[in-house]
Parts: sequence; structure tokens; C-alpha cells
Amino acid sequence: MTKPLRLGIAGLGTVGVGVIKIIQEKKSLLEARTGKQIIISAVTAKNKDKERGVDLTPYPWEQDPISLVKRDDVDVFIELIGGHEGVAKEALELAIKNGKDVITANKALLAHHGQSLALIAEESGSALRFEAAVAGGIPVIKSLTEGLAGNSISKIMGVMNGTCNYILTRMESSGLSYEEVFSEADDLGYLEADPNLDIGGIDAAHKLSLLSSIAFGTEVNFNGVELDGIDKITINDIHQAADMGYRIKLLGVSQMTSNGLEQRMAPCLVPASSPLGQLEGGTNMIVIEGDQVGQIVLRGAGAGEGPTASAVIADLADLARGNRLTTFGQPAKTLTKAISSKSQTLAPYYLRMLLHDEPGALAKITKILSEFNVSIDRMRQYGHEDENAPVLIVTHEIRHEDLMKAIQKMPNTEVLKAQPVAIRIEVV
Amino acid sequence: MTKPLRLGIAGLGTVGVGVIKIIQEKKSLLEARTGKQIIISAVTAKNKDKERGVDLTPYPWEQDPISLVKRDDVDVFIELIGGHEGVAKEALELAIKNGKDVITANKALLAHHGQSLALIAEESGSALRFEAAVAGGIPVIKSLTEGLAGNSISKIMGVMNGTCNYILTRMESSGLSYEEVFSEADDLGYLEADPNLDIGGIDAAHKLSLLSSIAFGTEVNFNGVELDGIDKITINDIHQAADMGYRIKLLGVSQMTSNGLEQRMAPCLVPASSPLGQLEGGTNMIVIEGDQVGQIVLRGAGAGEGPTASAVIADLADLARGNRLTTFGQPAKTLTKAISSKSQTLAPYYLRMLLHDEPGALAKITKILSEFNVSIDRMRQYGHEDENAPVLIVTHEIRHEDLMKAIQKMPNTEVLKAQPVAIRIEVV
Repeated sequence: MTKPLRLGIAGLGTVGVGVIKIIQEKKSLLEARTGKQIIISAVTAKNKDKERGVDLTPYPWEQDPISLVKRDDVDVFIELIGGHEGVAKEALELAIKNGKDVITANKALLAHHGQSLALIAEESGSALRFEAAVAGGIPVIKSLTEGLAGNSISKIMGVMNGTCNYILTRMESSGLSYEEVFSEADDLGYLEADPNLDIGGIDAAHKLSLLSSIAFGTEVNFNGVELDGIDKITINDIHQAADMGYRIKLLGVSQMTSNGLEQRMAPCLVPASSPLGQLEGGTNMIVIEGDQVGQIVLRGAGAGEGPTASAVIADLADLARGNRLTTFGQPAKTLTKAISSKSQTLAPYYLRMLLHDEPGALAKITKILSEFNVSIDRMRQYGHEDENAPVLIVTHEIRHEDLMKAIQKMPNTEVLKAQPVAIRIEVV
Repeated sequence: MTKPLRLGIAGLGTVGVGVIKIIQEKKSLLEARTGKQIIISAVTAKNKDKERGVDLTPYPWEQDPISLVKRDDVDVFIELIGGHEGVAKEALELAIKNGKDVITANKALLAHHGQSLALIAEESGSALRFEAAVAGGIPVIKSLTEGLAGNSISKIMGVMNGTCNYILTRMESSGLSYEEVFSEADDLGYLEADPNLDIGGIDAAHKLSLLSSIAFGTEVNFNGVELDGIDKITINDIHQAADMGYRIKLLGVSQMTSNGLEQRMAPCLVPASSPLGQLEGGTNMIVIEGDQVGQIVLRGAGAGEGPTASAVIADLADLARGNRLTTFGQPAKTLTKAISSKSQTLAPYYLRMLLHDEPGALAKITKILSEFNVSIDRMRQYGHEDENAPVLIVTHEIRHEDLMKAIQKMPNTEVLKAQPVAIRIEVV
């Protein structure tokens, strides 16, 4: 047996505690599998005295992440602090500058600073691994970077935020409003400290931007993600989409087009019978399309102590086995700048409108749609509530831009009772 | 750039040709991702003159796999010949004895000789990789060995033979008999030269035995797989299972129990609405249950030129990147002998019987079932055809042994018109 791999763990929340438990409970299994003893040299977190349900007495406590990184007996710095600025960034940067390997679950940090951090890591020969940053326990970074290395990737899709999927599936099953389910989720502790990270789609967009970089050989471009949250989705949208055979998911899509890289994180309609459509609760799913392999679907728990710790340990096992990779699957200096393209790819759309119940109202709307080449595949008009006529339209494949232009012109008709809602339909 | 990785490819069927095409067409992508130039030093196959749709003129032709292995300019021997004895085994063994790395898609060879080959490879420091041997393009070996290295695995399930899944789903959609669909599949070239490898479940059992070894740290034990093919499944079974909300799949299940390792490859009923139940055609799916990660589902094409070549290239990328693993996830000499256990785990069963249409017939059968503690969850009796009364039973969770004893005693009642058919139900 070679010399042990010595860890410094910063951040002892759910994931940090999960990692320590696995290292304690699976000592012999991990040694058999990796050929190395894995030792925790020291730990640190904000609050030393908090009861965490795991025995920390064997480990020296460091005052802060910086001093933890500086210890001579730390080979691998495990950053589970979170946040894209501040001490997490400082400590991680110091570690890779000093040639130490780093494992992190910090999608925000990598989404904002991935390129510069990868450059530093590769310059000093450090490994910077982040399986736990995307889709919890699903080995998606590994599958994409290594398992599909022989493929030109054309598209990645996925449900990558369990909280949003919980809210949307719970709204459907309970019939409760967005606001009611949101406060339920809050009570259950499902939401981030800043809930907009979840429901605004930001957390999921962080993850998508990391997958895009690996898939397309481009620098991480979080700002290039077209972003829309789930907070405008009503229980009516959910019911009416279901009526048309669809379910609403906060779906990430990243695809390389002739115009550049399209990255979207937004509510989408997907066929109710498709694998993505059937995803319940906090489960995540990633769909990868490669030119050789066709479509690969990966599904599993996207968060939680066990699944996320499992991903950290996967990175750790790689390092213990001596298996090293560049951060984004090829040297950071060879990644190209992503040319962002706003949704140019054609797609069908779902369009919900509330019209005044008056003769010719619908004709005025459909006339505008046809002016902008928005052709209608299916249309439903519902029984009139009060004096309003709710109308649902599923379009043929159209350009997003054309639909937006049509919607902008609609108020001129004076038949709209409310702002139309348009949601892209992804055929999976 | 370091010195190139030099390949010798033996076997130029579908997969070999696919591998060569990727190496030719994605030269710069592979170099960017792996940091190495990948060069084909020489190739060999049975027939030199066959038109294969790929330009082989750049590559020296070796007379046979043995002389290919012996070439000084071959670092990695890619074995795509197939067969668990003969020249494939000889050449592979020679390669690893000589310290060369090997990539193979040969599940049969590894199922029969995996342990001894892994010992030789590890003794001489060779890597012996086989992602392409299981589930085509799905990175399941990598996910299990690396991505889930922090988990104690409790169970693996999967549909791993596309041909069988094609036959079963085609029977259901067309209403054709097993024999009719079998000859269709034969005409389409979907069957192995020895079709029993597919429909007898042997090919899928090879794959299952390899996954079991990695998952449970046990020596490959192909002979420990309880094996049953799909050739006894009738169109009636398919229709009647559908009536009860199930679909029939050739399902592999491997689980560690207190009595030992249970490995089964046999037709099973799975809920029609489950991910496994919805699997169509040649698609494969592997479900892995780990104590940390929960349930991970991997889905994709299980065969074909692109998907299988994609898996070979994944192994190749690992080697080019300098990432090496023991064959089965831990050193072969540390693998334990698998103690095989015949299906002891409780499960519900589907039982199809054809009874004489006479008073008390069903009572006689249910009396025997209750004698052996086989309790009935649901029962259906169909409209009588001729003088027969088809009866379907779904049991509660029972022991397989008890059911077999009950079935053995049934002929004594003299009410059976045919041998009862019992199929395990897997709840996924």
C-alpha cells in the first residue's frame, strides 16, 4: 500500500458530514477499491460547537479554510462551503496555486470563475474536480468527460434542480397554487437561503453552464444562459398543459448550433409520457445526445447527504487511484470562447391567452399569429368563465423571435384580458 | 504533447469499423481531450478483402491477432474478435502477459475467464478494460467502478440484451407469435450466429456476471447466474400480463443477500409504467442501488456500431489520459469467491394456468397454493375457450421454492390442461 491520501475538509453541512461518515464507515471498502488509505487530516467550519451527528473528535479543527489549505498534511482540499465569492473562492484558489488537489460541490463558484480557476489548477498541476456540483449522485460529469469522450455532443437536456421539480410536481398532484407550495417547500427546508437561486433557475443554470463547457469545449459561460424561473407558472398552466398531454418542467437545454451555443434554463413543456415528463419530486435527469452513442439518459437523486457525498467520494476515489483529469475535459487554455446564441432553434410553443368573450376575438389573434408565421398545430377554447375565453394553442415548430413579435402586437387588438403566456415545448 | 498511443485492432466487424471511423474522424477532438495522439499501428481480421466502408489502406495488415500483439509498435491491443475460447483468448492473454494494455468488448471471454485474466493483467501491470462489453454505449462499467465507488451496492437490475427486448416489445405491438417475431429478427440480422446466446439469456447473463463482480467485490461467477430464456414466453403471456398492468422483460437481477449472491437472468414482469416497463426495442437500461446514492438509472443504446465503438473509445481515452484501473474495481486477488444463492429473496409471482372447465377445479388449485404459503393478491379467470378456463394469479411476496413445490403438486389434482407458467415480478 502506498502512502495515504490526506484530506482537509472545509464546510460541515449536510454534504461534509455525509463525506466524513462514508470515510469512517467504508474505510476498508475504499482502501480495497482505491489501493490507498484515506485520512482526514483536519476539518473546519463556521461553527465548531454545533452537533452534527458525526464524531469529529479524531480530527484537528482548523480555525478557517485558509489555514486548513496551508497544512502540510493536506493533499486534497475538499471545499464544501459554497458561495461564488469570499472564503470558498480564496481557499480554493490558494489550494490550487499551491499545487494541491481540490474537490468541490460549488457550482456557483465554478459557473462564475471556472475558467480562471481551471487555468490556475492546470498551470500548477492540480486536479480540480466537481462531480458533486451537478445533479447530486448521478455520475454525469464523469459520464460526459470520460464515458462519452469519443462523441461530438450535440445537445444536453436536463432537470437539475430538485426543489423546482418538487414544487411543480406537488402543484400538479395537490392542486395547490405556486405560492402555497412554495411556502410548504420553505417549511420543509427545501429552499436555499436565497430561494431565487432555486426558483429563479440560477442554481440549475450554474450546473448547465458547467456541462456545456465539457460537452462543447467552450469556456464556462454562465451569463450566456437564457434564464427564466418557475415563479410565473400557475396551477392553470399545469392543468391545461396536462390536458394537452404535457408536463411543465424547469428544463435546461444546451445545444451547439450554426449560430453559436444556445443555453436555456426555463420552464418547458415535455410530453407527459416521456422520461423527463415522468420525473417526480426531487429526482434529477440528464439527457445527453452524442453523434456516436445516440441518446444517453441518466437519472437519480439530485441532492441530499448520501447522493452528494457519494459524488464527492467518487472524485476522491479517482484521485486516490491516481486518475487525473483537466477540469473541463480538455486543457482550459484550449477551450474556445462560447459565442452565445439566443434561442434560434425552431420549437413548438404552448401559448395561453385569456380573451374577451366577443365575436371575432379569436380571429384577430390568429390573424396576428399568421402574419408572423406562427402556425397553429392544435387549439382549445375552454368554457367561458365570467366574460373571458381562455384559449390554448400549441404551435408548429416556429422561431421564438417570431412568436415574441406576434405577442407584442397582440395588445393592439384590444381583445386580450391578460398578458399571454408562452412556454417552449421540448420534444425529448 | 507526449508520445502517441499506438493501437493494434483485431476484429473488423461492426464495432472495429466504428472504432476506426471515430479515430479517423475525431483526431483533433480526441487529441484535445486526451492530450495524446492516437495512432493505429496495424489491424487484422479474418478476411482481408472484405469491403468494410472504411479506408484501411493507411494501416499495415497483420496476418493474425497473435502477430499483431507481438508488434513493438502496439501499446494497446483492442480485441473485437469475440468468443470465449480460441484466438481471442490466446491473443488477449499474450498481450496482458507482455504488459500491454487491452480493451475488449468480449463479454463471453470475461464471463468465463475474467478472474484469471484479471490476475495476469494486474501481475504484469496491464490494464484490461471492457466498457463496450456491457450495455453498449451506456457508461455503466465506469459509473459503477468509479462514479459509485463510495457506495455499498445492494442491487443491480437491467435489460441488457436489445435483441430480446426487441422481440418482446415487437410481439406486444404486432400481436405476432414468438416464432414469427424470432424469424423477423433473424431476417433483420439482429440475432447472434448462435441465437441461443441472445434468446437463451446467455449473452445478457455474461454481462450481469461482470457487473456483479464490480458491484460486490466477488470473482466473476457466470455459472452462478440462474438462467432462463424468453423462448417460452407466449403472446398470451404478454397480453395477459399487460391486462394486469405489467410488461415482460428479460431482466437481469443481481443482489447480495445474507445467503449469498443471487444472480438471475430471466423473463420478469415489471410494472408497465416503470422506467424498465417502458423500455422499447433495442434500448438497454441498468438500475443500480447504492446505500449512499439511492437508485441510479442509466439508459441508452445497448448495441450497434456507434454506441459500442463509443464505449471502446471511452476506455481508450482513459488509457490515453493515463487513467488506469484494476479490471473489476479492486485488485483481482482481493475479490472474494461468490457464494451463489438460488432465489431466496421474496417476490410476487405471476402464475398462468389453464384448467379444465369443471366445478371445483380452481378450488383444488388454490388449496394447494395455500398449503405452500402462496397467498394470492389478485386473480382473474378469463372467458372459457373451448373447455378450458385460463386463470391468472398475482401472488403476494412469496418464496420461489414454495411456489415450485406447489406447482409440482398441482398435476395430482388432474384439473390442469397444461404446465403452469410462473414468472417473477420485479418491483422497480
